[in-house]
Amino acid sequence: MSVRYLEDFEIGQTFGSGRLVVEAKAIKQFAAEFDPQPFHLDEQAARETVFRGLAASGWHTTALTMRLLVESDFRPAGGIVGASFDELRWPKPVRPGDELRVESEVLEVKASKSKPELGFVKVRVTTLNQAGEAVQIYIGNLMVPRRVRA
Amino acid sequence: MSVRYLEDFEIGQTFGSGRLVVEAKAIKQFAAEFDPQPFHLDEQAARETVFRGLAASGWHTTALTMRLLVESDFRPAGGIVGASFDELRWPKPVRPGDELRVESEVLEVKASKSKPELGFVKVRVTTLNQAGEAVQIYIGNLMVPRRVRA
Repeated sequence: MSVRYLEDFEIGQTFGSGRLVVEAKAIKQFAAEFDPQPFHLDEQAARETVFRGLAASGWHTTALTMRLLVESDFRPAGGIVGASFDELRWPKPVRPGDELRVESEVLEVKASKSKPELGFVKVRVTTLNQAGEAVQIYIGNLMVPRRVRA
Repeated sequence: MSVRYLEDFEIGQTFGSGRLVVEAKAIKQFAAEFDPQPFHLDEQAARETVFRGLAASGWHTTALTMRLLVESDFRPAGGIVGASFDELRWPKPVRPGDELRVESEVLEVKASKSKPELGFVKVRVTTLNQAGEAVQIYIGNLMVPRRVRA
């Protein structure tokens, strides 16, 4: 699959991804480094919290989602570069053993007003678990180069 | 500093954090695991990209911000649990050697309509570099327990 310039994106296009299993060990390792709170670090301690059991840090989920996106067929020329996000939420916790995949849908395509060589693609990125439940939804505005004209 | 319940938060409260230096090695390690794109992996390759040099993955910055937040005086009872985010952006790249710190400001405090024991605190979290420039800004809605009444 070749890379796509701004002109190659259209509203309604969708892109899938590979799959990735989140192990308890990885949840705890990420948390120890970046989000050391009981519900991300230890099964026993997590039971007494709002999560009622071990759950991945939301920032672990955003990072794993990026990994799946980078390896998917969603390939803007110049790479996946997020300028801003309109929303981000985690409707359900990611649990040990969950298998994640990503679905992306193009919501908007527009040229930059200030930079003729650039544009923006607004995309809804949904991360789903093995039961098809959304564990993360965000809407991102990506910077995408326009096709260079001769 | 003791933990804070919903009733202990007020609009306009601000919280600082410690500081943390982001080394090139950490930028590349995070990228290799979660965001393997040239501008996050290799100085030379990064020069030819929109970043014009090595830059941290934005998801690395969100993760480091969480680390600084968890270790700061911003201590909601029950932990820092993000329900949703209204916006997230990265106004400037994080470069190797940057020293980051976080400033949080409470924007809104409200009780949950459906759950009497819970509420939400809307907070703007700004991550700054050593020059005082914002490298990341997000507005998050955190779930915070209400004080238990006897």
